[in-house]
Amino acid sequence: MLDLYHAEPAANSLKVLVAFKEKGLDFNSHFVNLHKFEQHEDGYLKINPNGQVPALVHDGGGVTESTVINEYVDEVFPDVPLKPDTPLGRARMRIWTKFVDEYFCPALSHLAWHYMIRGITDSLTEQQFEEYLSRIPLKEQRDKWRISAEQGNPPEQLEEWRRKVKVSVDRMETTLKENKWLAGDTFSLADVACFAMSPGLPQRFSEFANEKDTPHFIDWLNRMHERDGVKAALNMPNPLQESGEAPPMPDKW
Amino acid sequence: MLDLYHAEPAANSLKVLVAFKEKGLDFNSHFVNLHKFEQHEDGYLKINPNGQVPALVHDGGGVTESTVINEYVDEVFPDVPLKPDTPLGRARMRIWTKFVDEYFCPALSHLAWHYMIRGITDSLTEQQFEEYLSRIPLKEQRDKWRISAEQGNPPEQLEEWRRKVKVSVDRMETTLKENKWLAGDTFSLADVACFAMSPGLPQRFSEFANEKDTPHFIDWLNRMHERDGVKAALNMPNPLQESGEAPPMPDKW
Repeated sequence: MLDLYHAEPAANSLKVLVAFKEKGLDFNSHFVNLHKFEQHEDGYLKINPNGQVPALVHDGGGVTESTVINEYVDEVFPDVPLKPDTPLGRARMRIWTKFVDEYFCPALSHLAWHYMIRGITDSLTEQQFEEYLSRIPLKEQRDKWRISAEQGNPPEQLEEWRRKVKVSVDRMETTLKENKWLAGDTFSLADVACFAMSPGLPQRFSEFANEKDTPHFIDWLNRMHERDGVKAALNMPNPLQESGEAPPMPDKW
Repeated sequence: MLDLYHAEPAANSLKVLVAFKEKGLDFNSHFVNLHKFEQHEDGYLKINPNGQVPALVHDGGGVTESTVINEYVDEVFPDVPLKPDTPLGRARMRIWTKFVDEYFCPALSHLAWHYMIRGITDSLTEQQFEEYLSRIPLKEQRDKWRISAEQGNPPEQLEEWRRKVKVSVDRMETTLKENKWLAGDTFSLADVACFAMSPGLPQRFSEFANEKDTPHFIDWLNRMHERDGVKAALNMPNPLQESGEAPPMPDKW
């Protein structure tokens, strides 16, 4: 059995949920509430010592990193392949999934964190905040939390992250002008990875992610939303929204 | 035929050279002189618009990104496989290659750049430097060059990169205490990726990469150096050393 540990269907959790649903995999869903810092609790750290979601347990082994999880399930359950059928196509796919992990996702994630953290931490005492912070295994994550919660990020830093999101959208647009899907003619994990970062972009970055400037990106986004696997992933139970715990965020980033 | 564009056998260029030599691949080697900024010249930008090495041209297609190139050749030329033979083994391998790309290599590359750039740019006029800079396609690279060459990096930034190199060495040590190779029992692209960053560590970071603190890492490094493929990669013709153009660098970083 596949045991998938994930948060609400967004970003890296959405990336694995879309792949699992597209492939029609049966799995045990374990919701990890990031807003209650469950990813840093001892129980979860046994599954992923880095304290990050998603993580997969299968066949007695653990797999971390959303991109690696998606490659793993695509190898183990090849019936509905999510990789192009040529080596060059797979290389194009991996250049995209790498770009998402190293560039697109970090920029977006920093912005999300910037707009979200105070809604999470404002209700904590300083001591509680320090306690939560001390449990975070990765120093980079601790630094990100502290800077965002205490000092805030300087405007030029926010601008730099926005610039990277724009570069990412423009890069998708350029490719989608030529190809139906990001790695070529075939829907693949490249589309899954990019889509996981994209549902909120037309609203939050309407100044550059819109019908006029990036029509192929918008068309691709619409085609993604029509897919059954994507619909099923986005419709996964979301305990945060049901309980009203989802923190408020501004419409524009 | 495989056309490989690469620099001297270090870092990401070494990563592909080791894989190609381990697999016994016949390829056309095209040396790109980074110290003359050849990676930003128009001819090379047609091969990789990002202006980075290595890059591969094969079968009428181009593949960039050293990690993707290594996965590509391992798929196309499976005779000497460089991936473990189980899906969990391959997942472990990919967690390592991703860690190298996102954490270990960037930290080391920033330090290398810090200690190297002035040897390269001191002989340039300000106008020449600006001209070279204006040709760099990626803004992140332009910023890195300008900061290192003009202001230098603050001590706390250097310390943070050193810390990340130490985390990387410790992580290898922990794994190699349990396993012969980084992804398990099998030599794989995980070893290739980590090794590409490691030959200089025992000298440059002798305070934490040494026989006493990290014996398994040192033993692994020695075993890597004994491999024919690794020897052949490190012995690739190095026009920089032959012409005396290799910039001087301090022994310790």
